[in-house]
Order: sequence, then structure tokens, then C-alpha cells
Amino acid sequence: MTIVADRRKDAARDSEVMRFPADKPLRLDSGAELRGLEVAYKTYGALNADKSNAVLICHALTMDQYVASTHPVTGKPGWWEKAVGPGRLLDTDRHFVICANVVGGCMGTTGPASLNPATGKPYGLSFPVVTIGDMVRAQAMLVEALGIETLFAVVGGSMGGMQVLQWAADYPEKLFSAICIASTAKHSAQNIAFHEVGRQAIMADPDWRGGAYAEAGVRPEKGLGVARMGAHITYVSEDALQRKFGRGLQRDGLSWTFDADFQVEGYLRYQGSSFVDRFDANAYLYITRAMDYFDLPTRFGGQLANAFVAARDVRFCVLSITSDWLYPTRESREIVRALNAAGCRASFLEVVSDKGHDAFLLDEPQMYGALEGFLAAAGQARGLK
Amino acid sequence: MTIVADRRKDAARDSEVMRFPADKPLRLDSGAELRGLEVAYKTYGALNADKSNAVLICHALTMDQYVASTHPVTGKPGWWEKAVGPGRLLDTDRHFVICANVVGGCMGTTGPASLNPATGKPYGLSFPVVTIGDMVRAQAMLVEALGIETLFAVVGGSMGGMQVLQWAADYPEKLFSAICIASTAKHSAQNIAFHEVGRQAIMADPDWRGGAYAEAGVRPEKGLGVARMGAHITYVSEDALQRKFGRGLQRDGLSWTFDADFQVEGYLRYQGSSFVDRFDANAYLYITRAMDYFDLPTRFGGQLANAFVAARDVRFCVLSITSDWLYPTRESREIVRALNAAGCRASFLEVVSDKGHDAFLLDEPQMYGALEGFLAAAGQARGLK
Repeated sequence: MTIVADRRKDAARDSEVMRFPADKPLRLDSGAELRGLEVAYKTYGALNADKSNAVLICHALTMDQYVASTHPVTGKPGWWEKAVGPGRLLDTDRHFVICANVVGGCMGTTGPASLNPATGKPYGLSFPVVTIGDMVRAQAMLVEALGIETLFAVVGGSMGGMQVLQWAADYPEKLFSAICIASTAKHSAQNIAFHEVGRQAIMADPDWRGGAYAEAGVRPEKGLGVARMGAHITYVSEDALQRKFGRGLQRDGLSWTFDADFQVEGYLRYQGSSFVDRFDANAYLYITRAMDYFDLPTRFGGQLANAFVAARDVRFCVLSITSDWLYPTRESREIVRALNAAGCRASFLEVVSDKGHDAFLLDEPQMYGALEGFLAAAGQARGLK
Repeated sequence: MTIVADRRKDAARDSEVMRFPADKPLRLDSGAELRGLEVAYKTYGALNADKSNAVLICHALTMDQYVASTHPVTGKPGWWEKAVGPGRLLDTDRHFVICANVVGGCMGTTGPASLNPATGKPYGLSFPVVTIGDMVRAQAMLVEALGIETLFAVVGGSMGGMQVLQWAADYPEKLFSAICIASTAKHSAQNIAFHEVGRQAIMADPDWRGGAYAEAGVRPEKGLGVARMGAHITYVSEDALQRKFGRGLQRDGLSWTFDADFQVEGYLRYQGSSFVDRFDANAYLYITRAMDYFDLPTRFGGQLANAFVAARDVRFCVLSITSDWLYPTRESREIVRALNAAGCRASFLEVVSDKGHDAFLLDEPQMYGALEGFLAAAGQARGLK
């Protein structure tokens, strides 16, 4: 029996929205509940008759449901159009692709910028701290509301990969296959440290106003921009930065001021300033916090393998990137070792790329080749045409 | 003939200060001049009769002249007391050790917080952008004013190592030996990127006021704190952070708020808040800029070896640290290759430590062993007793 939920169109955001009734709250890991949950999502392709071709894509920290559609704010192409579309890796002529904005996000799913039904004002910091588990629980509610019992595949990179692992731990019976790219089973001290600097940059901005900036009609743009600049460094490898920019100057000669002399400075400033146009500062706080709280082994008694014992029928594909220093290959190997220890079927490939963490979003033929092979075999096993 | 300069005591700061007359300005690489230059410094031990035992220690970004004395602001021991003192590596019973605050700094040497003689107000952003070359030129003026023709050794780690290389390029005839630890001949794109994030954090703080915060009686403490937090991550290795903190909590259980749950968060916040008590935000801007501008190969026609051709009589010791990802070993190897190509005598050791960049300040027996051997041989060659 599917959850009775109200499906509507958000025309301004060009997004579908599933609204769950107040008596079907999202139960959060913190113990709190979110009543009147809304999940904003996009779908591509059509669900087949036996509902066996649904693919859920889980997005990373600053992404959203616009995986293969023009972004309503930036007007830019979807963040993984290379992989999603007719004839592509996730072929929308054959698959029914779903991508939902995470809980705590800022593109239509309930988050800190949403109105708190109890006060009629934006939640701000009264929004409860959410987890990767909460994000996945909301996705499971959406999938059920769409009438889908089993996903052919759940796919994600970075924070999306954390959600994939959480799906395997919490809903193994709903998965046929799972693809986890450039991710980790728990956030390291260095990961937490970088996120904490970003959060402190936001909270140091007087326009943050304790999180209640919306009511004041301001936005902590400078703080959020600094947070993004710092984070962006971790998404690329040192080699890539060196090759792309080195010590190249924006103009002839040094300015002998604090203007952006070096190309890498101009690039980072652009990354910061363009980000604040499309992202909400409080959402950045909440989502980074969810990532920092992510620790699948500890939830399963210190043994990651325990998280996967019920997922023996799920086909796993784990990919890492050689130059990813945010979630280095050894963290993917830990996932693979745990899958093996749990008796799961796991393919693993370390993709050779010097582009760093963000290579999972780029055109990496080796990665695409591995995913194509994995999906073809899984599709055959699933009896997809 | 030595420069006529006025030596005085800064009692409040427990520091010596050398003031140069207005007609002996510091000529800067930018083309500007600093008139009435003051250089704040500390000395330890005594200059011997033939003035052959002087050692100049060059400090890193956030250090100062208090290499082996209690810091006047924090009350903490000197930043390299392990290495400097009676019977220690740099034995003050045998050596005359000098350590001067760099130009652009904030512990008494002329910098952006100094009064601009033209206006009677603090320089703020009217202070000229300075370089590592300018810092070394000021040190050379100090050394000359102290009546010393040749330094037995110039020693420095990190930005201090850059100054050591600059000394070798600009004043080879004044050096007997040179020790460059955990440093580089030019700042990489990633180095510049991290510094730029720190500068943007400072300049995003409304209390920065375009650099004129002193007149307004405020300080951009939040911005400077964020800058320090981000920079601090680069000073330690991921392994060290993981071993020291891992995912350890400050209290039992998660707070489900944005308080510092994780020990690494508390540690970073402490690093940020304690730093602002002792450091000036504008000085941080100027010194990071000097480091980013540092590019010795480009100054010498793209060939680093050309920087050292006049330094063939100088004995060099170059040390790197295995887990230093800020100035990785390959950058020290480039220095060593250039020294070899120029026909210089160079010892090189990659110190095995998993503590990251800041290991050069810590108790690393392998590093101390190498330095002891190098200094003993150099001292013997110099005829020191």
C-alpha cells in the first residue's frame, strides 16, 4: 500500500513536489519529526509496466534535483547531463530516473528556508539537525509514494554515495543494485575540519543573524562565498589546480594590491560569488552537518560489514578516483572490504584521473566504461529491455 | 662601514628595535620605499671576537622574533625553544642568535599597523605590498647595523625557508651556511588558493573596514579567526588529525546543534580564537601576499639554479617532511636539484614524520640529528669553538 501523498507542480522552480500529510511525518534520527514534509524532485523517462526500471540518483552537497534539466536559477545544464538522457549511461529511453532534493536542502524540499508550520516563519535554526539517514528516509517515502517497490539502481557520488550506502543499510530489500562513487562510510577528522571552517565563515557574517536572515531581508553572502571558496579547493587535486592555473596572472604583471592577481584567485572568487546566487546559507550549514554526522560503522557496532549483511542480494559498484584527497581511495576500499566481509557482490575500480574529487562529475571515460558494464550486467539480470 | 641606526629597547614588547634614519629607507621590490624603518628583534648569546658565530633565524608566517623567549602577549614559551638555547641545537653558549620580526609583521617591525609618517595614522592598506625579498633586505640592514659581515648560518622553516633561499640569491657573500626546512622556491596554485580564502575571510568581516579598523577601535576578529582555522588544517597531516581527534566527541553524544560536537571542531575554534589575540589582520594579509608573490625561479629567468650560481661557497642543508602536503618533498627536491645544477654543496634529507608541515616546529629526532650533524661540520669548517 502506498503512502497517500499530494503531488503538485512547482512551476517557478520547474519541479515536481510530493507533499506528505501531517499524519505521515518524517521521523528524524534526532528524535524530532518533520510534519507536512515536501520533497521536490524531477523524473526522466517512464516507469515500465512491471515497475522494474526505476533509478534513484542521490545528489551531492551543493547539487539538487536538476540532474538532467536546466537549473531554474542559473540557467545552466543539469549537473550530470553527461550521464542521464536518451542513449546515455542512465538511458531515459530505458530507465525511469528520479532525482530528489535532499531534506535540509534549498530547492523545494523541506529545509531551513521552509516555513515552520508552527510559527508561519522560515525555520532558520529552529529546523532540526538532519542526517544522511533522514535524507534517505524521505527518499524512501517519495519512492513509495510513486508506487515503486524496488529500485533497479540507487546511484550517487560524494554525499550521494553516502546516501547509497545508507539505502543499502536501511532498505536493502528495495534495491537491486547500488553505485557508490568517490565517497566514504564515515567523515574523517579532516573532512569535519574543512566543513567547520565553512560553517564558521557563514556564522561569522553579521548578515547571518543567527540564521534568521530571511526575515531581515538580508543574506550572509560573504560568509557563504568564503565557505564555498575553501570547500572548492578540496574538490580539485593540487595537480589539476597547478595545470589549469599554476602561477598564471589575470593581467600583465602584479598589481601590488589585494586584487585578484593570480588566475586561481579570480577562479575561486567566481566560485564563491556564483554559488551564493543559487544556494542558501542555512542549507549549507545543515547539509554539511549531516555529512559530518555520517558514520555508518559506528551505527553498526563499529563493524561496517554489519551494515550490509541484509544486502547480499544487492549488486554493488564502488568507484574511487586516484587523485581524490577528500575521500581517498582507501576509504572506498574500506567499503569494499566490508561488502566482501558481509558476503555482498561488489565491483570496485579506482578510476585513474588527476582531476580530484570532482572528477566524478566530469567526462572520465574509464569511469563511464565501468558504469556501463556494471549497469548492462545488472539490467540483464533484472530482465530490463 | 655599518649603517648608522638607532638601537632602542621596546620594554612593553620585551624586544630590541633598530630604527633606520629616514635617509636610509628600505627600498621595496614594488618600487616604493619605507622611510624610518624599524626592525624589532631578539638576540641570544654573544657575538664572538671575530664576529663569525652569528646565526639568523627567519620566522614563518605567524611567528615572530620570540624564538626562544616568552611571548609578550601570550606568555607562552618561544616558538623554537627546543632548538635555541644553551647546549641546544643552536647553542647560545657558542652562537649569537638573531631573530627579527619580518617587514609587514605586527610585533614591532614596520608593518600595516605602524604609523604612516606621512599621515600620523596607522598605514592600514596604504602600507605597500612587500615581498620575501623586502623582508630579507630589511634583515640584511639589521645584520649590517649590528656590525656583522657574514652570518655563520641563516635558518628557517616554511616562510622562513623562503627567506633563506632569498638570502642565498641576494646576499651569498654574507652567508657561510643556509638551512631551509619544509619550504619551497615558489608558491603553488593550491598555496595561493588557501591564502586567498583566508584573505577573503578577513576582508569579508565588516570590522575590517577596508583595513582602517584601528582608527575605528575595532578588529576583524571573526574573519581573522576563520582564516586561521582554514590555514591550520594545511599545517597538519590528515593522519595526524585522524590520530589525534578522529571522530572523537567533546561530550557524550551529539548535540544536534551547531555547537562544536567533535574534538577537531573545538580544536580548530581554539586555534582561531587564540590567534586573534596575538596577531594583526592586516599583517596576515600582507605576509600571505608576500608568500604568494614568492617565485624565485621566475625572478631568475625561469631557472632556479641561476639564483644560486653566486652561492657556490655556501653550505646548504635542505629538509622536507614526508607528510607535509603544504610544501611537499618534491618542492624541496627542486631546490636541491637547482643547488646541484648551480654547483653548490647541498645536503638533503626527507624527514620521516606523519605530523605534516608543522613537524618542523616539533620534536622530530631525525630532523634534529640531521641539523646537528650539518651544523657541527659547518662549525668546524668555520673554526667555531
